[in-house]
Amino acid sequence: MELKQAIYPVEPWTITEREFKKETNYRNETTFALSNGYLGSRGTFEEGYLFTEEEGLEGNFINGFYESEQIRYGEWNYGFPLTSQSLLNLPNMKTTHVFLGEEKLDLFQGEIIDYHRTLHMKEGYVCREVVWKSPKGKKVKFYTERFCSMTCKNLMLMKLLITPLNFSGEITVKSFLEGNVENHTRTTNPLVDYGPFGPHLCCDELTADKETVDFYYEGTTQNSRLGMACMGRHEVKCGKIKEVLVKADKAKAAAEIDMVFAGEENGCIELNKYLAYTSSLDMPRDEMKGFLKETLARAERQGVKKLKENQAEYMKNFWENADIQIEGDDSLQQGIRFNLFHIMQAAARDGRTGMGAKGLSGEGYEGHYFWDTEMYVLPVFIYTDKERAKALLDYRYNTLNEARERARVLGHEKGALYPWRTINGNEASTYFPLGTAQYHINGDIAYAFRLYIDVNDDFAYLVEKGAEVFIETARVYADVGDFAECRGGKYCICAVTGPDEYNAIVDNNFYTNLIARENLKSAVWALEQMKEKDRPAYDNLIARLHVTEDETAHWQKIIDNMYFPYDEERKIYPLDDGFLMRKKWDESKIPAEKRHLLYENFHPLFIFRQQMSKQADAILGMLLYSNYFTQEELKRNYDFYQRVTLHHSSLSTCIFGILASQIGYEKEAYDYFQQSARMDLDDYHNNFYAGIHAANMAGTWQGIVFGFAGLRTNAGSLAFKPSIPEKWKSYSFSIHYQGSLIRVRTDAFKAEYQLMNEVPVTLYIEGEQINLRKKGERYEKEI
Amino acid sequence: MELKQAIYPVEPWTITEREFKKETNYRNETTFALSNGYLGSRGTFEEGYLFTEEEGLEGNFINGFYESEQIRYGEWNYGFPLTSQSLLNLPNMKTTHVFLGEEKLDLFQGEIIDYHRTLHMKEGYVCREVVWKSPKGKKVKFYTERFCSMTCKNLMLMKLLITPLNFSGEITVKSFLEGNVENHTRTTNPLVDYGPFGPHLCCDELTADKETVDFYYEGTTQNSRLGMACMGRHEVKCGKIKEVLVKADKAKAAAEIDMVFAGEENGCIELNKYLAYTSSLDMPRDEMKGFLKETLARAERQGVKKLKENQAEYMKNFWENADIQIEGDDSLQQGIRFNLFHIMQAAARDGRTGMGAKGLSGEGYEGHYFWDTEMYVLPVFIYTDKERAKALLDYRYNTLNEARERARVLGHEKGALYPWRTINGNEASTYFPLGTAQYHINGDIAYAFRLYIDVNDDFAYLVEKGAEVFIETARVYADVGDFAECRGGKYCICAVTGPDEYNAIVDNNFYTNLIARENLKSAVWALEQMKEKDRPAYDNLIARLHVTEDETAHWQKIIDNMYFPYDEERKIYPLDDGFLMRKKWDESKIPAEKRHLLYENFHPLFIFRQQMSKQADAILGMLLYSNYFTQEELKRNYDFYQRVTLHHSSLSTCIFGILASQIGYEKEAYDYFQQSARMDLDDYHNNFYAGIHAANMAGTWQGIVFGFAGLRTNAGSLAFKPSIPEKWKSYSFSIHYQGSLIRVRTDAFKAEYQLMNEVPVTLYIEGEQINLRKKGERYEKEI
Repeated sequence: MELKQAIYPVEPWTITEREFKKETNYRNETTFALSNGYLGSRGTFEEGYLFTEEEGLEGNFINGFYESEQIRYGEWNYGFPLTSQSLLNLPNMKTTHVFLGEEKLDLFQGEIIDYHRTLHMKEGYVCREVVWKSPKGKKVKFYTERFCSMTCKNLMLMKLLITPLNFSGEITVKSFLEGNVENHTRTTNPLVDYGPFGPHLCCDELTADKETVDFYYEGTTQNSRLGMACMGRHEVKCGKIKEVLVKADKAKAAAEIDMVFAGEENGCIELNKYLAYTSSLDMPRDEMKGFLKETLARAERQGVKKLKENQAEYMKNFWENADIQIEGDDSLQQGIRFNLFHIMQAAARDGRTGMGAKGLSGEGYEGHYFWDTEMYVLPVFIYTDKERAKALLDYRYNTLNEARERARVLGHEKGALYPWRTINGNEASTYFPLGTAQYHINGDIAYAFRLYIDVNDDFAYLVEKGAEVFIETARVYADVGDFAECRGGKYCICAVTGPDEYNAIVDNNFYTNLIARENLKSAVWALEQMKEKDRPAYDNLIARLHVTEDETAHWQKIIDNMYFPYDEERKIYPLDDGFLMRKKWDESKIPAEKRHLLYENFHPLFIFRQQMSKQADAILGMLLYSNYFTQEELKRNYDFYQRVTLHHSSLSTCIFGILASQIGYEKEAYDYFQQSARMDLDDYHNNFYAGIHAANMAGTWQGIVFGFAGLRTNAGSLAFKPSIPEKWKSYSFSIHYQGSLIRVRTDAFKAEYQLMNEVPVTLYIEGEQINLRKKGERYEKEI
Repeated sequence: MELKQAIYPVEPWTITEREFKKETNYRNETTFALSNGYLGSRGTFEEGYLFTEEEGLEGNFINGFYESEQIRYGEWNYGFPLTSQSLLNLPNMKTTHVFLGEEKLDLFQGEIIDYHRTLHMKEGYVCREVVWKSPKGKKVKFYTERFCSMTCKNLMLMKLLITPLNFSGEITVKSFLEGNVENHTRTTNPLVDYGPFGPHLCCDELTADKETVDFYYEGTTQNSRLGMACMGRHEVKCGKIKEVLVKADKAKAAAEIDMVFAGEENGCIELNKYLAYTSSLDMPRDEMKGFLKETLARAERQGVKKLKENQAEYMKNFWENADIQIEGDDSLQQGIRFNLFHIMQAAARDGRTGMGAKGLSGEGYEGHYFWDTEMYVLPVFIYTDKERAKALLDYRYNTLNEARERARVLGHEKGALYPWRTINGNEASTYFPLGTAQYHINGDIAYAFRLYIDVNDDFAYLVEKGAEVFIETARVYADVGDFAECRGGKYCICAVTGPDEYNAIVDNNFYTNLIARENLKSAVWALEQMKEKDRPAYDNLIARLHVTEDETAHWQKIIDNMYFPYDEERKIYPLDDGFLMRKKWDESKIPAEKRHLLYENFHPLFIFRQQMSKQADAILGMLLYSNYFTQEELKRNYDFYQRVTLHHSSLSTCIFGILASQIGYEKEAYDYFQQSARMDLDDYHNNFYAGIHAANMAGTWQGIVFGFAGLRTNAGSLAFKPSIPEKWKSYSFSIHYQGSLIRVRTDAFKAEYQLMNEVPVTLYIEGEQINLRKKGERYEKEI
């Protein structure tokens, strides 16, 4: 595997762009995208250049705020979703034109003397400094700063500094509210036929106020009938203002605030923009305006400086828990921080919304939430940021009723079936072989709940939400299959699709059967736990969900008799019943330019028939439950899947890397890790423009913690099996486990484990039991 | 199984409707639909009543004439067809209003004194006689007759007789050309989203001529850009005509010819309408008008009387070859003749078009051609009407290039893959799990070619067309699967759908693997035959198709090593690899009203997971190749499939019935036969309004000939194994076999086989070899 040249300079805590180029704009808009899990805004320029759909996408999003369109099917079948959900691109308030007299600051004109834009990951903001000479010779320094507030979810903040360097004279700053926005569906989701195309927000109110120097937009989506509002307030901190002009054109959904300054050579004009968004998903419509006014007033009272300090404080706390330090490889150090920064940004924290596969960084995948959150991202937060993890789990709990309805549509009399892709909790997958058929989604969600409860020892959460999720998800697995005489009475699950999207509608997908069994186990375990520890809650739950002894006995029978495909000769677990019968894959027959775009170039049936795999599938199951397998088994299976896996999904290499670590394939582990760590930063898939690959980003953290450090809790205790890549001097990170905070540092000679708080912990280091009882207590192990 | 009450009086050669009722109109339009394989017209009334979309559908069709629409997919995948093909409803020229003075003949007004409409299957026409009293008391006898000419494919003929019974006075006959026609897609193909909706023919020319008393329409389809033309000429045979008025309104695409008669009490007005259609698929557009003029002139010269005689002559010939006589069950006698009549009508004879699953009797299935033709209909024609069979095979040969292109789209470097549903030869299936995945289509087509060649000993056709079809279809089977170590090196075919549409995307569908092997055998056989008998043709073919020895060796290896799913315990062949693992079907959980509409009420995945079968699948394979199985094997498999098959397809019961005959399950055989024989006539599926079920209709013939008479040629010779249902006195039929014409008659005591021409034949009657050497020679066998 070849590594790509680094796109940005290698720096530990920053990402810097040193050149202003149209060609890299679209990608860089994602690199510099900001978000706080609620509000997201792409890294577009304040100057508001008119890029084509291939060159850029202005994007501002509220998590969970979607538009629906009627989905059309050549041939509709029962249960195919009839309406879509697409994260809707919202009015933009960032655009700010600067006029030096008559000349507009436009980097495509004149001369760029100095340029850099930097993402400050440590402090959580982006800034840009430009020195520019206008065609007529006016030189100006233009500095902007932007962040989405981590402490007030509705808020995005911008600072603009304009310094005339070789002239004095009128400088006009024009700040815009652009409400006539549309998604770029053809570019960002090209296979999607239903849109949204064209503007989909209808403007209900639009004002610009000269007194308060603010503009306000309120609108409603055409079909989903959701309301949103945004308000921008302008604060002049420095500079002599001569005049303020305001315009608001409701028909064009456009407002403008022009501020005319008397610019002085080397005198700085400083302007802050306080921008706030909310929607009817958060409050009654008639409260939105008042809420935004108040939010902005409070923000202005605090001031950008204070808000930026709050941001830094928040980020400090985040990094203290989540950061991984790598000594000896600055490039990977940068990669992993970039990844952690973006997943942190992307994760919702309100319990009402989830986390898109692309966060809020773009329109890719229509902003849908997938299993990526549970299987890739959540483990990171579960070990580093309990509350953030819980909020994402809450979202699934809060959409349990939608999942129950979906289970009925799929013919299950009981239980809940979570949607393969969704925003509002309803299935939005229009192609069921690669969508709804992925029944493992239930087990994935149950897995994340269980991991959270185990790692954080949160019995209260089990009682409050977890148990219900375990039971309802398990019920679908208890209904979807049957005990098959022809398989020795084992429980078989037919016609599902596993994680691997190149093998669809298969029987006995190994991963699905495994995750289903574990889901059933969690349901049984949850009831046992509650019965023992909280009998009233247990009785209540049993009664409320009508759980009978027959039912739990049926679950147990399935647990005891789950079928797994197994090849006696190779002694491996095939992906599914049919995998070993498929056609041997001959990549030489596939033209090179088509190799990574199989679904774009080949019929699904052609793909389904090949003995190859898009991504980690059975291997992921074996990693999650590595406690059930011997090293030899893992090796055999890894070797097999290593040969047949194409890694055409961004969800693959990180998993293979971790398992490679576990079985001592150090070189491969490192290769895979490298690829994962810088996949987005160096745009390996050439589609970073459409948004981040959150799952892989999180997979990088897993690559170190589960991979090199060998952390496992699947056997019911905290275990490590440390290793370190040859090229590194050391790596270190912290994790939370059942109340304890443990700092782990591994260098070429030893692995150190230090208890950082007062909660004693027992560790197993390569099987050896270690107790850390007091804060600061440390254990070292040679490696 | 309960039999339904007969809808029409039981009569041997006719179907009679004795009541004029809105409620039964839609269904009766199909019952009385007429066609000649090129032109089809539904059994609508001359009075042109305004029925709603739920009550009726005026329909006039040209075989192969379709409109295309863009197909939209929620999510498009490579190889999904982008344009549809829908048999387009064409201008109607049948409507003829009769005015008694000011009063319009309208059976919904006034009083119906006498009414009957009769389909004369023996002579091939429909007539209707009505005695009606107008609200003002005028009594009139109204007689109409209609047929689609079997001897001139472009021609439909109508005769109208109007006799005033109690008055003299002005009688006006208004004949209409109605060009503003639209398909009733929402009703006839409700799952189809792409239309056509609204009128789709653009009128290019519209005229009405007072001199020649004709009207003419020429139009072009919006998207497929096909041209069609129709012309109607009026001939007054009796009656005193006072005036002729003509109107033509191109904007409304409507023309009208009004003929004013001086009606006399008990004096008959006799009017003939000669109606002709053609299209740009048959000739250059600029020749259409001249061609129709000439066709009508010729027709008028011959006269309706002569044309009707020709029709009767043609029909006589047809029935001589194809008729089955049943003594002792008039109801089944009527049923089988109704079925034979309709499939005869439906079959194209020009080699350029095929036969829709619903013939030309309605818009159901968009007029598409499926495997129904090859596996159900063609065997009938192959044994009774060689030329008709050949024409349908020619259509497949003539679309081989489209099938080659389709194979490339599906990733096959060589060979041809026929479309699952089509009109123009390109795949029109928008839902690949139940469409394109049905790879058995290739084997089905090859089966029909082989059967034709074997039964008619037509080596010339093998050389000319058959061999190329065998080779090209076989090539796809030689590429679609692989030899699987895990199955002992046997050749496995993954991710296909068999005939059974309730089990989709499966591995090793028994039927598919069997028909694939036989297809490969036919390819090998064809080359051997040609090499032996026509070396130049062989050399030419080998060179033209680049057939290598490696390739044929590969075919032979597959033939020798085809995998078939087999259950050792039950000693049966499961439908596919996964069938026995699926959930046991519990129909009690399905509400009764949903049981026959599974896809309308359940998600495909729910259906795929159940251990049940929609229709004959493996059983069909075992019937076609019954020579490979012992009676015991057939019994075991029949018993198994009998339990798990729901017969939700009209293609099922006839096959089960035949196999039941073979294994001596006489009661079941008879039950199934009864159901098949009157399925459409008594509207068992409640959807006869949408068109005939051609496959089942043909299956009835098979039920007697292959079922009760036990005819088989699959072992390479003509064999019989006669039986007779208890209730029957006798049944008899004729078949052609390798040039011989053999008449078979079976009664309760004996089966008789008589050679009806000069070509000697060898028969095997229950294993005993019989030679019939001379015309008239007869052999009897007690039963």
